[in-house]
Amino acid sequence: MQARQVRLMLSVMVVAALLGLSTLAQTTLQARPKAKTFLIRDAALALTMDPAIGSGRLGRLENADVYVVGGQIAAVGQDLVVNDKDVEVIDARGKIVMPGFVDTHNHLWQTLIRGCGTDDEIPTWLPGCVYSLAGPTLTREDAYAIVRLGVLDALQTGVTTVLDFSHSFNPEFVRGYIRALDESGLRYVYVYRVRNNPATLEDARTVKRELIDPNPLATLQIGQHPSQALRNDLAAAVRLSNELGVDLNVHLLEHFSDRGERPVELLESLGALNARLVVNHVVHPTDEEIQLLAARGVRVTHNPLSNMRLASGVMPIEKFQQAGAKIGLGLDGGANDTSDMFNLMRAAVGLQRAKHLDASAYPTVEDALWLATMGGAEVLGMQERIGSLTPGKQADLLIIDPATLNFAPRIDWVSQLVFNGQPHNVEWVFVAGRPLKAKGKLVGVNERKVIEAAEQVADKVRAIITR
Amino acid sequence: MQARQVRLMLSVMVVAALLGLSTLAQTTLQARPKAKTFLIRDAALALTMDPAIGSGRLGRLENADVYVVGGQIAAVGQDLVVNDKDVEVIDARGKIVMPGFVDTHNHLWQTLIRGCGTDDEIPTWLPGCVYSLAGPTLTREDAYAIVRLGVLDALQTGVTTVLDFSHSFNPEFVRGYIRALDESGLRYVYVYRVRNNPATLEDARTVKRELIDPNPLATLQIGQHPSQALRNDLAAAVRLSNELGVDLNVHLLEHFSDRGERPVELLESLGALNARLVVNHVVHPTDEEIQLLAARGVRVTHNPLSNMRLASGVMPIEKFQQAGAKIGLGLDGGANDTSDMFNLMRAAVGLQRAKHLDASAYPTVEDALWLATMGGAEVLGMQERIGSLTPGKQADLLIIDPATLNFAPRIDWVSQLVFNGQPHNVEWVFVAGRPLKAKGKLVGVNERKVIEAAEQVADKVRAIITR
Repeated sequence: MQARQVRLMLSVMVVAALLGLSTLAQTTLQARPKAKTFLIRDAALALTMDPAIGSGRLGRLENADVYVVGGQIAAVGQDLVVNDKDVEVIDARGKIVMPGFVDTHNHLWQTLIRGCGTDDEIPTWLPGCVYSLAGPTLTREDAYAIVRLGVLDALQTGVTTVLDFSHSFNPEFVRGYIRALDESGLRYVYVYRVRNNPATLEDARTVKRELIDPNPLATLQIGQHPSQALRNDLAAAVRLSNELGVDLNVHLLEHFSDRGERPVELLESLGALNARLVVNHVVHPTDEEIQLLAARGVRVTHNPLSNMRLASGVMPIEKFQQAGAKIGLGLDGGANDTSDMFNLMRAAVGLQRAKHLDASAYPTVEDALWLATMGGAEVLGMQERIGSLTPGKQADLLIIDPATLNFAPRIDWVSQLVFNGQPHNVEWVFVAGRPLKAKGKLVGVNERKVIEAAEQVADKVRAIITR
Repeated sequence: MQARQVRLMLSVMVVAALLGLSTLAQTTLQARPKAKTFLIRDAALALTMDPAIGSGRLGRLENADVYVVGGQIAAVGQDLVVNDKDVEVIDARGKIVMPGFVDTHNHLWQTLIRGCGTDDEIPTWLPGCVYSLAGPTLTREDAYAIVRLGVLDALQTGVTTVLDFSHSFNPEFVRGYIRALDESGLRYVYVYRVRNNPATLEDARTVKRELIDPNPLATLQIGQHPSQALRNDLAAAVRLSNELGVDLNVHLLEHFSDRGERPVELLESLGALNARLVVNHVVHPTDEEIQLLAARGVRVTHNPLSNMRLASGVMPIEKFQQAGAKIGLGLDGGANDTSDMFNLMRAAVGLQRAKHLDASAYPTVEDALWLATMGGAEVLGMQERIGSLTPGKQADLLIIDPATLNFAPRIDWVSQLVFNGQPHNVEWVFVAGRPLKAKGKLVGVNERKVIEAAEQVADKVRAIITR
């Protein structure tokens, strides 16, 4: 009964707090404030992704409150008693609350090559659309402009943590890139793709020390590609990742022609096949390779939209799951072009169903939601910090509005998240308790200016890339 | 030079006309006005889908004007000279103009069962989510409410013509259904699913005479299902379609278990395998059946999102194309749940690419855009009236805004339509020259009321359907 009384009192406070909400929404990224204390009140459904909070594997909890203090989740439950007169309250009646999406594989700069190489597969798409821009072509300002567009697009679909495999074309490019990631307010992993070149290796060390380590939202990984021609570069990347104590990130067996490179052997010969390795795509492994990767604790990203767009094929994801590998989902930048996380989950489910003629094929709808949140957190080694609405974790979370023409009426919201969701259903996005999207709008962002700046870079490269 | 002068004069008129545009946008569906005369001015790109207007198969034309008079396309070209002082002008600078999407297979009432049977295939999904609602359960008002939600959702993604295979559960349901379709302003084909029952057959005749024939935007087809247990019902449907001179519409070989029904033989034995037949899905045909269907002029719909969701499989669409069959795309109602036409085109392209490991697999990006417009028009037998921006055709068209975070910058807009498009990019939708979506908003629609009404029907059925 005491809870009920507090509840009534809070109802009065809701009105006052809502009037004050504009403060929260007007937060600008330039002057990023400290995370506020706030209470998400009475969400129709919370998917906590924590089986200890709510029912089932996704931790389903109806009429749920989420209390956030200092950027962390302080409490999740029904009719929470909050003894804080000044707490800001967000009325979530009729809404769904869940952890933010974790995008485990992206190349945000590839917003610049959207639509490029329409009918290409990897072997022609890479040189035409990607490597044609290698070297000094793209400046710091260029990188900033195109990554800013990409990261804001990821944000508006509900991504709160993004791993970005940056091609790191030159040191200036890297700095513009990281500035855009920093300003976005997202949690991110920057993958610095290094060559066997002292200056580049030293730059990666500098970037870690000066740009990544001081930012609690940022993490560094080292990237390269396991092909025979790049053996020396890959070896340098392995050494640097060991030296810095950070993960190694590579594309693996994405196109069927990659088998000829014997990439798993190559990684093994360099001592890289271990729990500090993240591999992307893995569409064309043998069963033995799947067992080996899983046994070594290698983490895996699945990128179905990209695999469809680039005709890479259908990843045998169910075999990785059965082998016990950690798996996450990735939007994969320009290759899939779109950054609709709902479309990504839908594709992850549907592609396997269409292949296996079996609606219980892995991943199911529940699996897809789990992969897009906790699965991703595990792949990035952040399972203690993000991926679920567990008290003590970072307040990276979404409020989703299902009262739209594409989503209503309510039948099975969990299923509808995957099959009906669209980015505009994501009404609020918080990272570490900071509102980056509020009431359906990105906070402190002039979208027109962002788009115009990206168009200027496109003007510069249109004649360079192959379309 | 004369064209230039007129152009300058028109530029002045643009300002005046834009001030008057609110008239156009405030059109209500209840009091649907006659189609207006208007000029879409200076679209950055028109895809006319008419190779005679613009370059290539999609009829690409830059800096294009589209002049619409009396609901029809009067002229398409660059720097059109329009001698009409009162013409309303829509400034389309920076935008894409193209024909509206033709959705050749849907069940709009299934918005009511969104998310139902999450992990079901057809054999369990149908009885649990669909047939559990057969008979008198759903009233005229129920049908109106759920179809209104569905048709508005289709409209906002750019569908201008929808074929709706209605399960026609009872005569009242049929009337509420058709009212919602009528009020939407969309062009539509209502498929009346009949049983071998004099009252139902007579009702279908009445519906055609009283509700469909008086409406220039409406067409009737007769529907049934080719299974042995429904042979008498199918025979009655064939007879009625012949009597009324309208097309017959059936699902065919959607689930692999459908092969046991020998549906192609069954249709042949009833004399139905001819150019008046439309078949949906056809995921599991033999090569001989494909040849037979194509040779008889049977038209085919492809529903990849549904085929993925329901684990039906991957349609051998390239074989139908090689055999010369007419093919369109379908969103397929509740089964695919979402009604994002861009996602549908993306899935049509990507599913075949993933299967064939070949980025040139049919359909390519250009094929997908063609299937979603002209291909659909051919499947519905409306190729003389809709599907392209050809003068004399109905003004069913879209203005798409590519200046958004999910779409920009401009690299290859044709590719980006398929790989980047989202429903919110569709800024204007016209059917027969009437604006049904204007400046990103549905015209004359109270979305909240539409959703609330659909939720009330969901409250009624939630305990009946299997989830």
